[in-house]
Amino acid sequence: MIPKEILDKIDSNRKRYVDELAGFLAIPSVSTYSHHRADVRRAGEWVLHQVKRLGFQGGLFETGGHPVVFAQRCPHPDRPTLLVYGHYDVQPPEPKDEWVSPPFTPSIRDGYIYARGASDDKGQFFTYIKAVEAVLAVAGELPINVKILAEGEEEIGSPNLPAFLKKRRDDLKADAMAVSDGAQFARGVPAITYGLRGLSYFQLDVRGPRFDLHSGSFGGLVTNPALALSSILAKLKDENGAVALPGFYDDVVELEEWERREMASLPFDEEDLKRYLGVKELDGEKGYTPLERKTARPTLDVNGIWGGFAGEGAKTIIPARAGAKISMRLVPNQTPKRVNALFEGHVRTLVPSGIRVDVKELHGAEPVLIARDLKEIQAASRAIQVGFGKTPVFIREGGSIPVINIFKERLGLEAILMMGWGSPDDGAHSPNERFHLEDFHRGIRAAAALLYELL
Amino acid sequence: MIPKEILDKIDSNRKRYVDELAGFLAIPSVSTYSHHRADVRRAGEWVLHQVKRLGFQGGLFETGGHPVVFAQRCPHPDRPTLLVYGHYDVQPPEPKDEWVSPPFTPSIRDGYIYARGASDDKGQFFTYIKAVEAVLAVAGELPINVKILAEGEEEIGSPNLPAFLKKRRDDLKADAMAVSDGAQFARGVPAITYGLRGLSYFQLDVRGPRFDLHSGSFGGLVTNPALALSSILAKLKDENGAVALPGFYDDVVELEEWERREMASLPFDEEDLKRYLGVKELDGEKGYTPLERKTARPTLDVNGIWGGFAGEGAKTIIPARAGAKISMRLVPNQTPKRVNALFEGHVRTLVPSGIRVDVKELHGAEPVLIARDLKEIQAASRAIQVGFGKTPVFIREGGSIPVINIFKERLGLEAILMMGWGSPDDGAHSPNERFHLEDFHRGIRAAAALLYELL
Repeated sequence: MIPKEILDKIDSNRKRYVDELAGFLAIPSVSTYSHHRADVRRAGEWVLHQVKRLGFQGGLFETGGHPVVFAQRCPHPDRPTLLVYGHYDVQPPEPKDEWVSPPFTPSIRDGYIYARGASDDKGQFFTYIKAVEAVLAVAGELPINVKILAEGEEEIGSPNLPAFLKKRRDDLKADAMAVSDGAQFARGVPAITYGLRGLSYFQLDVRGPRFDLHSGSFGGLVTNPALALSSILAKLKDENGAVALPGFYDDVVELEEWERREMASLPFDEEDLKRYLGVKELDGEKGYTPLERKTARPTLDVNGIWGGFAGEGAKTIIPARAGAKISMRLVPNQTPKRVNALFEGHVRTLVPSGIRVDVKELHGAEPVLIARDLKEIQAASRAIQVGFGKTPVFIREGGSIPVINIFKERLGLEAILMMGWGSPDDGAHSPNERFHLEDFHRGIRAAAALLYELL
Repeated sequence: MIPKEILDKIDSNRKRYVDELAGFLAIPSVSTYSHHRADVRRAGEWVLHQVKRLGFQGGLFETGGHPVVFAQRCPHPDRPTLLVYGHYDVQPPEPKDEWVSPPFTPSIRDGYIYARGASDDKGQFFTYIKAVEAVLAVAGELPINVKILAEGEEEIGSPNLPAFLKKRRDDLKADAMAVSDGAQFARGVPAITYGLRGLSYFQLDVRGPRFDLHSGSFGGLVTNPALALSSILAKLKDENGAVALPGFYDDVVELEEWERREMASLPFDEEDLKRYLGVKELDGEKGYTPLERKTARPTLDVNGIWGGFAGEGAKTIIPARAGAKISMRLVPNQTPKRVNALFEGHVRTLVPSGIRVDVKELHGAEPVLIARDLKEIQAASRAIQVGFGKTPVFIREGGSIPVINIFKERLGLEAILMMGWGSPDDGAHSPNERFHLEDFHRGIRAAAALLYELL
C-alpha cells in the first residue's frame, strides 16, 4: 500500500509536472518524417536526462533508425521488477490548419493540455517518471525494481525494437510490464486493456500512361489509373461492411457469449459518439455492436488516396499515376503475414489491363490477448483504484501496439499491464490532440501506487 | 490564289517568327490559377500589341474574368469576312518536375519548341497574326476582311465569352470563322475537323467525420470517406468500359456506316500509340475502334482524386474528407445540361450512410458537328494544300472547344473552320508540351493562303 505522504507529494507538485510535460510536448518528434530526425533524438535525450536525474543508470542506444532510451534503478535483487514501456515519438500533425493552437506549442484550455503527443504517448508515459520521482523524494528508495524503456519509432511500427530486445534480452528481464500507451474506456471509466488489434498497412501505387494525358484527345483509349484504383479499393469491402478478401475471416476468433455480455454492459452512448465524430450514422460490419466492431472485429480503411489534379478549378487530364494507403486492423488469431499474402493476392486479381500496380507493405503488428487472472493484473486494478478512485473495467482496444507481441515472444513476458490514463476522445492521431490535466495527475498517482501493489 | 511572293516572304522570316513566339510562350498565362491573373492579362496585351502594329483597330475588353482581345481590319465592305478565334491562356504546368525544360522557358530541341501553350493554343493562334503580317508586307492590304478574337479563359470553359459575344454580336459578324485550336490527324496528315466532343466536368467533395480519426480506435465505426468516394467512382463505369449513368446513351447519335469506313481508312497505328502512351493495352468501350472511341463515343474520366495522408511512410487515420474531379466527354446529341442532371442524380443514389457528398459542376461544353460541303470548308481544304502540300483528311476530334456552339448560336456562324497545325502527340495539357517548327511554318503559309481562297 502506497504511503499517503507520496500521494500528498504528488498532489502538491501538479503545476510543476504540467510545466515539465509542456517542455516535452514542444519537441516535434515526428518519427515518420526524415526532416524531424534531430527532433526525435532530442526528445529521447530529454527522457534520458529526466531519468538520470532520478539516479537511473542507462543511456541512449543507437538502432538502425531512431534511438532507444533504456535505464534502470534496481536496488532489490529479491523483489519484483517492473518494466515501463512508452514512446517519445509522435504522429505527424497534419492537417495543420485544423489545430486551434499550434501542434508543438502546448496550450492549456478548459482543463486540457493541447499538443501533438499530449496523450499519445508523451503525457501518459511521463506519469511513470514523475511517480518514480515522488516515491524517491518521500521514501528515499523504490519499493521494487524499475526499468524504463522508451522508443522513438512506435508510430512507424517499431522497425528496430525487435533487434534491440533480442540484443538486450537479459537487461530487460522483468516480472511485469506497464504499457503507458492506451486509454481509459471513457473519461471517468478507467480500464485495463486485455486485448489489442493487430495491423497490416499497405501502399498501392498505380501507373497508367507515362505522363498525364489530355482527357479529350485520349479519353476512351486508356484505362484511367485513378478510376482503376477506385475500382480496386471498392472491391476490398462487401455490401455488409465486411472485408472482402477471400479467407480474411478464417483465423478470426469469434467473440464468446460472456464477452459480448460484458461489452454490452460497458457504458457506451452511441448518440454521444456520433455527436463527437460529427456523423449522422455509425457504420461497419453487420451483425456486431459498435463496441464489438471497434475492438474485437477486424476492419479495413483507406488512410489516404491521391492522383492527378487536386488544385483549384478544372484540369482536363487522365492522370498518369494514382496511389493509396490502406490499413487493416486484425484480431486474434489473424497474423499480418497471412493477411498480407491474402491482400496482395486479392489486389493482383483486381488489376485491369493497361495498368501496373505496385503493392508495398509498410508495416504490420500482431493482435494480442492477455490472461485476466494474473496476480499482476489484480495489482494493477488496485493501483488504478488508488489513482482514480474507481475499480477499472476490462476492455479490448481497437488500436495496435506493435511491440507487445515482441515483448511476449522475446522476453517471455505474460503480465503486460495496458493501462491508459487518457480518454478515447483525446484526439490521438487527429488535430487538436489533448490530455486532461486531471487524468494526468491521477495517472501519476496510479503509477506510484503500482510500484507498491506489485511488491 | 495566294501570290508566291507572300509565301517567299513567310519562308524568309522563319527564325524571327520563332523568336517572337518564344516571347509569347514565356508568359505564364494559366487562367485557372488566381495568382496568375496579371500574367494572363499580360498575354492578352501582348496579342493586342501584335495586331495593332498591323493596323488593326480594337482593344482589350474587360469581362467578369480575364479580358478578351478583339481587333479588326476590314478594308472591303463588299468582300467576305474571316473571324479568327484563338486563346492566349494555357493549362496549368503541373506536374512541374516532369518537364525537361521549364514550362515557361521555351526551349528548342530536335526541331520542336517546348513550352506550355506551344501548341495549345499560343503557337497555332500566332500563325494567323504572322500570316496577316506577311500579306500586308507584300500586298499592302488584305484580300478579305479579318477580325481577330482571342480569349483568356478557354482552359477554364470560357465562362465570360458568351456575354461578350452577345454584347458585340454586330462587331463580330463574319462569313467564316477559323479556329486555331486543334491538330492535324497525325504529323504529316493535315486535317479539317468537323466534329468535337462536348464536356461535363464535376468536383465531388466527400465529408465523413469532422476530423481525421485514429484508424485503430475508430476503425469499424464510421464510413471511410476515401473508400466511399472510391465506391462511387467505381460505379460510374461498367465492366464493358461504358459509362454507367442510366440514360447516358439515350441521346448519342450512333456512327453511320460510311463514317466508320472513313475512320477505318485513316492512318492509325495502334502499336505506335501504345508506345507513345507507354501502355501495354489500349482500353475503352467495347464494340468500337480506338479512333471511334476517342472521337465519336462519349467517355468518363477521373481527372484527380485526393484525401487523407499522402506523405512518406504510414499514418493510421480515417480521413475526414476526400474528393475527386470527374469529367465526361459528350458526343452529339448529348447536352451538358441533361448529362449533368443524370450524373448528379446517379451519384446521389450511390452515397452511403454517414457520408455527405457535395456535387459541384465546374464547367461544360456542347458537342459539335459541322456540314462538310460548305464552300468555306472547301476553301480551307485548298489553303491547307498550299501550306502543307497535302489534301486534308476530315476528322472528328476528341476534345472540346466550348465556345464553338456559342458562336454557332450567338453569331449564326455555320462555316466554322477547325484546322489545327499541331500534332496529337504535342502533349497539350501534359508535361513537355511542344510544337514542331516545321508545322508552325506550314501553318503560317496555310493561314495566309486561306485569306485568298476565301475571296
